[in-house]
Amino acid sequence: KVLWTVLVTVLGYASSLPVGEDALCTAEELAKYRIIFIGKWSQTAFPKQYPLYRPPAQWSSLLGVTHSSDYSMWKKNEYASNGVRDFAEKGEAWALMKEIEEAGEKIQSVHGIFSAPAISSGTGQTSTELEVHPRHPLVSFVVRIVPSPDWFVGIDSLSLCEGDHWMDEVSVDLFPYDAGTDSGFTFSSPNFATIPQDTVTEITCSSPSHPANSFYYPKLKILPPIAQVTMVKLKKSQLGLSAPFINLPAKSNEIIDTVS
Amino acid sequence: KVLWTVLVTVLGYASSLPVGEDALCTAEELAKYRIIFIGKWSQTAFPKQYPLYRPPAQWSSLLGVTHSSDYSMWKKNEYASNGVRDFAEKGEAWALMKEIEEAGEKIQSVHGIFSAPAISSGTGQTSTELEVHPRHPLVSFVVRIVPSPDWFVGIDSLSLCEGDHWMDEVSVDLFPYDAGTDSGFTFSSPNFATIPQDTVTEITCSSPSHPANSFYYPKLKILPPIAQVTMVKLKKSQLGLSAPFINLPAKSNEIIDTVS
Repeated sequence: KVLWTVLVTVLGYASSLPVGEDALCTAEELAKYRIIFIGKWSQTAFPKQYPLYRPPAQWSSLLGVTHSSDYSMWKKNEYASNGVRDFAEKGEAWALMKEIEEAGEKIQSVHGIFSAPAISSGTGQTSTELEVHPRHPLVSFVVRIVPSPDWFVGIDSLSLCEGDHWMDEVSVDLFPYDAGTDSGFTFSSPNFATIPQDTVTEITCSSPSHPANSFYYPKLKILPPIAQVTMVKLKKSQLGLSAPFINLPAKSNEIIDTVS
Repeated sequence: KVLWTVLVTVLGYASSLPVGEDALCTAEELAKYRIIFIGKWSQTAFPKQYPLYRPPAQWSSLLGVTHSSDYSMWKKNEYASNGVRDFAEKGEAWALMKEIEEAGEKIQSVHGIFSAPAISSGTGQTSTELEVHPRHPLVSFVVRIVPSPDWFVGIDSLSLCEGDHWMDEVSVDLFPYDAGTDSGFTFSSPNFATIPQDTVTEITCSSPSHPANSFYYPKLKILPPIAQVTMVKLKKSQLGLSAPFINLPAKSNEIIDTVS
């Protein structure tokens, strides 16, 4: 196992932390987590071209998967699958669900799929539960930015396993990505397919470097996080009939936008 | 148990088939189902005012719950909860998820919650898994009709248990309901709160009886089903790592709309 990990590193995945991680997970049994997604896409934080109607700023359903390193839902600087393209462009989940199902059947690289309801505004929350397994300790998910050409936020292959135990809580700031399949520059750009398809790239305050871009803020060093995700391990006593959900937070004041 | 069921019937719930059903469920252990929701809202079947853009006809996320008869998500001819109102009007799921969580904590009437991704067109499919328990054999869910004032489709307290066994497959045609909280008459009506709030009512081809209503088709006897849901019991051998999903169907040809 050590040799294999070293090999993977040599092949150039060194910067991608989670790869190979699952081979080393010796945590016991299954673990369940509550995953809470918080949208932070407010007009205050992102004033430029903030979508106010038809449709106003909002988030699609969240679609995620727990898996081994043999499966990848999406990866920065690689080409998006057809399923990720459909989801990032239109919020259409079916093709991506089929891809995940096939990965589960053919190479048993998938433990489970999870989904959380859409959020009808830029600042709001959604939540669901997920389950990981020592052989499938990685979490990936995508949430489409609505409206947008093919922009999304998400997590790629984050391991919830640390050696011989499951992490209690993980919280990650999220930043926008471009799926590389639609050449629109702004939230409400008309559809315009990118041919040939480009790779998945992170959108920053300076890239794409064009003043028309909706996230182009030349005075900023980095964009504020547009969303945040928290995964909290559920205690065994919290599982089962008596407490199917725990601590679903009330709407946090800090994320209420002042825009009417 | 028999006495209690009789009492419930006497109190006037006789017409509501599933109530009390769970008290009689003697099926063993848990059962898992795949639930597949199929949108049939095509321009061919529903030509009147069919929404083509901003937004085009589509379906929200599906939000559902497995529960006992002590919990009710929504019920025809009763008032919608605040959570159902938020979901039916805006697709905002948080309040409804909180209501379900509280029912689970306080009266242990809830077994689990489930959610499936939104569908970006009127005709399309989405799917997830759900789990029922002999004490919580009922399934309820809602899907918002988008765009609409406060219209939705769903299932109220359908029991998957039949005496001492779990049903293999259940398929139900779905028709539109009005949550009674917004007085809009057409798919794209502006928001206009119904004060005082009305009860949940079924929308038919003749009710509300007004030519402006989007579902008013005076020449029809009944509306065609606008959606369909199928729940298929998963075999035990199909559960677990090797087959997290089964038979997620390819997009069915019969539901492809010819509208460009």
